[in-house]
Amino acid sequence: MPERTIAFVVFPEITPLDLVGPLQVLQALEGLSDLRTVTVGERIEPVATDLPFRIVPARTFDEVPEPYGIIVPGGLLGPFHAMASDRLMGWLKRAASTASFVGSVCTGSLVLAALGLLEGKKATTHWSFLPHLARFGATPVKGRWVEDGNVITAAGVSAGIDMALALAARLTNESAAKTAQLILEYEPQPPFGPIAWEGSAPLLQAMGGVVAQQLPTILREKPELLAKFAP
Amino acid sequence: MPERTIAFVVFPEITPLDLVGPLQVLQALEGLSDLRTVTVGERIEPVATDLPFRIVPARTFDEVPEPYGIIVPGGLLGPFHAMASDRLMGWLKRAASTASFVGSVCTGSLVLAALGLLEGKKATTHWSFLPHLARFGATPVKGRWVEDGNVITAAGVSAGIDMALALAARLTNESAAKTAQLILEYEPQPPFGPIAWEGSAPLLQAMGGVVAQQLPTILREKPELLAKFAP
Repeated sequence: MPERTIAFVVFPEITPLDLVGPLQVLQALEGLSDLRTVTVGERIEPVATDLPFRIVPARTFDEVPEPYGIIVPGGLLGPFHAMASDRLMGWLKRAASTASFVGSVCTGSLVLAALGLLEGKKATTHWSFLPHLARFGATPVKGRWVEDGNVITAAGVSAGIDMALALAARLTNESAAKTAQLILEYEPQPPFGPIAWEGSAPLLQAMGGVVAQQLPTILREKPELLAKFAP
Repeated sequence: MPERTIAFVVFPEITPLDLVGPLQVLQALEGLSDLRTVTVGERIEPVATDLPFRIVPARTFDEVPEPYGIIVPGGLLGPFHAMASDRLMGWLKRAASTASFVGSVCTGSLVLAALGLLEGKKATTHWSFLPHLARFGATPVKGRWVEDGNVITAAGVSAGIDMALALAARLTNESAAKTAQLILEYEPQPPFGPIAWEGSAPLLQAMGGVVAQQLPTILREKPELLAKFAP
């Protein structure tokens, strides 16, 4: 039986939890199924993240031309670095055209949107960027994760774990997904209950400031994309 | 006001979610407090993990001799690689003696136990290794996270996120912790509900097989520790 490879895309300034949450879930299925996980990047060299460590992907884009599935992580600035890379975007466009599914976590969906992959589809992203999806022809949906055809998108950062468990069941079976949940001892107990949404306005302003300051530099060669993310 | 540095320890074969969950939470506090996060390892070079990517820590042990706090991640084999490293264990012992708190995620608590840091204390770990803590004079407690004096230990893998939010509130205030929760959009919705504990027996056997096979090699120079982890 041939293996089904799920490629996780690595690029500068990703939020590592976006990557690691679903990767840890799906990697746990390797012993239980024909699924295999891999990370892909431009080069097999250290890539900066938004945490104080760097990540070295396992393979180059060229080495994984036709993955079975693709997951794109996000970050505050990471997705814009992804959009600025012609090599990444070229690979993603080609790979998405043959993949059985394309997924994203957090603002990774903006990268899919920039490629036109969300046009006419329901999708989600980190709460702070949700309205932006409409500028790319998508229907923004507030959900922990959203499936539409062969595209699955998760909400912000930690939502990738929930999405990956749902995806795990779809790709294998619920029993295997529950084994992954057991391995990760995933029975969350947020100590302060649900999210305090009243804090979102000041945070949005602070995050918007960082993006507004950095974006013209990161997307200097992509004016049409820069315009889409203008305030 | 001097900064308070929290050092996250990197060593071979860690489970990245153990590291990244709490690091992503505590790093979110950097703009809101005097807390700073860093990763430390033997060398600033790529280190293998149990996922298909490597991690490059930001600093060497020597560069961060007296952190304010320490967090030790776990893994199936990672903690034994940590115990086998005299440089890591020497640094951890010295750093723990001056730190305000020492924490662990998953089987990272076994590393603390091996140093005698859990003697007479209540502590937790990944469900699969919970009974082992008693062999080091600790009282095993099944909890999402367990605090005893200046030691805080989390259950398996994903529990590090919950522990870090509780820790964030203790180190700063509840409002800052809730901002971190909002940034991470942490409002979990495990798609299949609570953990299916009935799957633990076969999983324990499979994991035990891996450990039994690898441990004599990893701990070949630490016979007294090897004996503590014998079946």
